[in-house]
Parts: sequence; structure tokens; C-alpha cells
Amino acid sequence: MKVSELGQFGMIDVVAKMIEESRDSRVDSWHNLLDGIGDDCAVWKGDTANQLAKVDCQVEGIHFNLNIITWEELGWKSLAVNLSDIASMGGLPCYALVSLGLPLDTQVEDVVQLYKGLLKLAKQSGTAIVGGNMSSSPHVFVDITVIGKTGNPAGKYLTRSAARPGDKIGVTGWLGTSAAGLEMLTQKLEFEAQISACLRQAFTQPEPRLAEGRLLIEKGVKAGTDISDGLVADLGHICDSSQVEAVIQSELLPIRSEVVEAFGERSLQMALSGGEDYQLLFTGRPEVIEKAMKVSKYPLTVIGDIKAAQTGRTSSIVILDSKGSRIEPQKTGWDHFKRR
Amino acid sequence: MKVSELGQFGMIDVVAKMIEESRDSRVDSWHNLLDGIGDDCAVWKGDTANQLAKVDCQVEGIHFNLNIITWEELGWKSLAVNLSDIASMGGLPCYALVSLGLPLDTQVEDVVQLYKGLLKLAKQSGTAIVGGNMSSSPHVFVDITVIGKTGNPAGKYLTRSAARPGDKIGVTGWLGTSAAGLEMLTQKLEFEAQISACLRQAFTQPEPRLAEGRLLIEKGVKAGTDISDGLVADLGHICDSSQVEAVIQSELLPIRSEVVEAFGERSLQMALSGGEDYQLLFTGRPEVIEKAMKVSKYPLTVIGDIKAAQTGRTSSIVILDSKGSRIEPQKTGWDHFKRR
Repeated sequence: MKVSELGQFGMIDVVAKMIEESRDSRVDSWHNLLDGIGDDCAVWKGDTANQLAKVDCQVEGIHFNLNIITWEELGWKSLAVNLSDIASMGGLPCYALVSLGLPLDTQVEDVVQLYKGLLKLAKQSGTAIVGGNMSSSPHVFVDITVIGKTGNPAGKYLTRSAARPGDKIGVTGWLGTSAAGLEMLTQKLEFEAQISACLRQAFTQPEPRLAEGRLLIEKGVKAGTDISDGLVADLGHICDSSQVEAVIQSELLPIRSEVVEAFGERSLQMALSGGEDYQLLFTGRPEVIEKAMKVSKYPLTVIGDIKAAQTGRTSSIVILDSKGSRIEPQKTGWDHFKRR
Repeated sequence: MKVSELGQFGMIDVVAKMIEESRDSRVDSWHNLLDGIGDDCAVWKGDTANQLAKVDCQVEGIHFNLNIITWEELGWKSLAVNLSDIASMGGLPCYALVSLGLPLDTQVEDVVQLYKGLLKLAKQSGTAIVGGNMSSSPHVFVDITVIGKTGNPAGKYLTRSAARPGDKIGVTGWLGTSAAGLEMLTQKLEFEAQISACLRQAFTQPEPRLAEGRLLIEKGVKAGTDISDGLVADLGHICDSSQVEAVIQSELLPIRSEVVEAFGERSLQMALSGGEDYQLLFTGRPEVIEKAMKVSKYPLTVIGDIKAAQTGRTSSIVILDSKGSRIEPQKTGWDHFKRR
């Protein structure tokens, strides 16, 4: 069987099972491991804080296209997608290692621009770039590992498995902006300057919500992830891990006016299924979410409720419009190994 | 200018300078950093031990060819090259994150075999695989980050910059065996079974010298690296970092009888310039090296001496035969970005 037939998540399941079977609790590293494969980051017990680690890769032609993103933007974004996973656990980033694959005819100046973007975000987020690798490769790839830690004395972190019936579902910022930006860039659509800048920014320069992740933990939120695959897909990961169901009210979804202006009715589907917003998606008791919303400087929006699981996995997320009618998402996620 | 014109090491210098300029010592991570870009691993102060981290990537067609290495061997080797860097600092591996790039038509069974090899070495070395990523990609790559720590109470580790005039130069194991294996496999050479198995093993299943790295530190050795690019190239890194010169006695080089039997006179050049042996190369006071040699269960061999730097960089390593005549190495290293 080919990986394209099994799919990315099937392949990960096979490997995760092999790794789990190799676990040896007599070994310190395994003994100290709190969360391995399956959440946004790995978590292990350190001496004074829990440690977090995450690897993510951007491959040319798969994740990015140098016709629509600059090298500097690519550098920023490649680090941002990793920091977003640290944010989604409510952690602090500390160190990063950067592995580059570069074709022989890559311009030195392009690599300098890539590092310029990457170092801008590293500096802004307090991440030290401590190691790296450069390899020749038929195409460009940027593979980054970030090592972080929990940012609170108790070592608490957000997980996908902590959602409970009765929780409110919240998101940071806006949804669908990055998908709108990608469509604008790939279809070469023209909008007025302010709209165009907003959409491009969302797609090429996502801001990992590090401060918000830590704020959520501080206020008592326990469940969270980041929106990389799209709201429906990532909420699905929370529902699967927590064995709960979710109801989303579509009229509550925070969508930027620029997206509505540019794409009209299609903006709802972009908000539901568009990936790469790198906003946080979280659930918590209503009073906890309210406390967080009161003090957050960045917008937090309640978009629905967590319910007890009753039906099967395939219908674990219900999306309702303002009249109570169900809306079907056009796309429920992204599988790297499925042929398109 | 293209990266192929500047070369891998020139490109690393450019990036290392940018990273150094971005350093901000008010940030904890930077403040705690002991060694960043430029040695085998990054090193930073942890709470009870110094922490080590390293990333390395194996790219299909560049580092490996699936016609001559099996998927299982590739899994082992991809982790081994990283663990070898931890060994070269005298550290203990703890955690690893594995990022895979896979073409859509990759067989699921091949990925299972890759993980089988990888997990075999992970188990043997006490490394927990705690995270990963799978991406579709036009060709296979295996990018692994290993996080480790110093294995002694004082937090000591081996560096490339600690070699001093008067030091003896030592190596673990044998040199050139991997290069002999690569040549046998690429040229489809046939030898008797025992020779063939020995050469294949060295190239496809290198054993990171973790125990030896820790033993060297325990006995007082301070300078070390691993032999990935070849003896002359890696000794060159020590000489550059320590600002010293080296004299190698060719008749002292430990070369397996299997290599001599298979390649005759060419075995000397394989030992000098062949890469990927993943043995340790170290320097230390004569009495310190002697102490280590007395207790090591694995062979350690003295191959030369460190001298004060007098001449320029280009002649920092002198290789002498038994009559005191100079031998020129055929190849002094490997540059990923140089066209071949």
C-alpha cells in the first residue's frame, strides 16, 4: 500500500503505535515524558518547568510557492508555524534549530532574506537560534525544531484532550483571513490596497499567539490547539482527543470585514475550512472564558459549545446558521498524502 | 552569487554572523547559551545539567541512494549521525523529533522499515522519539533533531576549540571503513562474505560512540569532534577552532584488515579522507589519553600530535609516512554546495 492510499493520519497512527511499543519506562527520558506524539508539542518534565518541543517543515511546491511568497516572508512563516504550536500549549519558546534544503543555484541573497525574516520573529518572540544544518536538495525545504517550556510555576499546559461538555469554544483573532490571502495570491486577484495588504499579511506573516496562550492558561483554560488545518479540522482533533462533540454558531465566527468585502458569501467557508490562520482554538468553562475575554488585549470570541458525545465520530461537529439550520463545511482538513 | 559559488561553509558563516548580531543577552535563552552555531551541538545551561541539541538531515540523492541502502538501514543511520554529534560532545541523548519528507508513492511498509531501524538504535541508546512530522515531498528526506545533556555532574563537554600544543591526537575504532563500504556498494564490487558484511555494516549502520565520548570526558579529555566529513576535514575543524596545527603519522592510522584486503594501497586515502565513519576524534594531554586507553573496552588509537600554529591555515595538517615524507590527502572534505 502507498502512503497516498493510507493517508497522512493513517501513516502517523502506524508510526505512533510502533513508537509506543518501543517505550521503555526504565529509561529516564521515557519516564519523564508527559505527552509524546499526538498533541501540538511533545511535553516532558524538566527540573523547574515542563519542556516543550515541536518540529515542522515547509516544502517548496507543497507548503509554499516562491512565486507568491518572498524569501523573507518564508523565513518568518517557517518559524511562526512552529511557535504557534508552542503558543497552542500556552508555552514560552526558548531555542530553535533550523535545517535548510537548498538547490545549488539558490541565490545567497535569498538565504540572507530568509534568515532576515526568521530572525525578526525570533527576536520578537525571545527565541534563540542555536543550531542548524544546510543541505543541498533538489528543492527548497525549511525544517525547524523549536524547544520551549511551560510559562507558569505549576507547569500547566493546554491539551487537545481537556475539552468537557458544557465548555464554551473560543478562538483568538479572526478566521479565514489566511485562506483569503492564499486565494488572492494564487488567483492574482486585485483588491484595494488596504484589503490586499491585510490578506497578504495574514497568509505570509502569521503572528503566533504566544501571549494569548499563556493568558488562557493563567485564567484557567485547559483545552487548546492552534488553527493550522482549518477550524473544522482542528476542532475535530479536540473532539476526537476529548471524546466530545461540538456545536458552532456560524454567525458568531469572527471574520474580518476585508475578507467579507473581497469574497462575500464565500468568506464563511474560508472561516470554517481555511487553514493556516495560526489562531488559537480553545475550550473552557463559561466563567473562565469570560475572565480571559475581559483582560485580553487581543480579541477572543466565543463561537460555540462543547456537548457530550452521542453520535459517531463522523458527525462530531455541527455547524448551525442563525436560523438553526445545519451548514456543511466544504472541506474538513488537509491530508498531505492524499493526491489532489 | 549562488550558494554553489559561495560554498556550504561560506553560507554558514554568513548566516552565523546574522544570528550572532541578533543575539540579545537580556533574553534568558541567549543568556544561558554556552555554545551556538559552530560546534557539533548547541549547548545551553539547564537547571541540573547542560543541555545539548543537534539537527541533521539525510536527503535522497545527496546523502543516500535507496538502491544501495535499505529503508531499515536508512532509519538507523539517520538517527546515528545525530547521536554521533551528541557522542562527540561526550553527552547523553534524551529525546528526538523526526521530520520525514515522503513522495506520495512511497510504500507504507518502507516507512515502517525506516522506523524499525530508527527505533532499534533509539532503544539501544536510551533516546525517546517524542515528536515528528510527515510531509509530502518530491523526494525522501529524513531530518532529525536530538536533544541531550551532559552526562557528568560538572556539566563538562568536549569542544573543537580545546586542543592545545603538546596534546596527543586520538581516534576511536577504525578509519575509512565506511568509505570502503560506500565504494563497494556503488561500484557493485564483490568480496568474500565476511569482508563484504564488515564494509556494508560500517557504511549503513554506524555505531555512535556514546560510551566512549563520556569515558573521554571522565578521564580529562577536553577536545573532540566526530568524523563525519573525513579525518583530515574534521581534524581541520579542530585546528581552526583551537588555532593549532596537527601532525599525523600515517602508519599509526587504525585501518581494518578487511579494508586493506579489499582496497590495498587505496585504504590509506580512505582512512585520511573517507567520511561517515562516525568515530570520535579527540586530543588531550599524553597522560590523559593513556588513562582513557587503559580502561576503554573499545579501541582508542593515538595517531599524531598537536603543535603550536606557525604556518597558515592551508597547511595546518601535516601527514607523514614512516620515513618522515609528507603525504597529501586526495580530498580534504565535503562541501554540500560545490558542484561535482
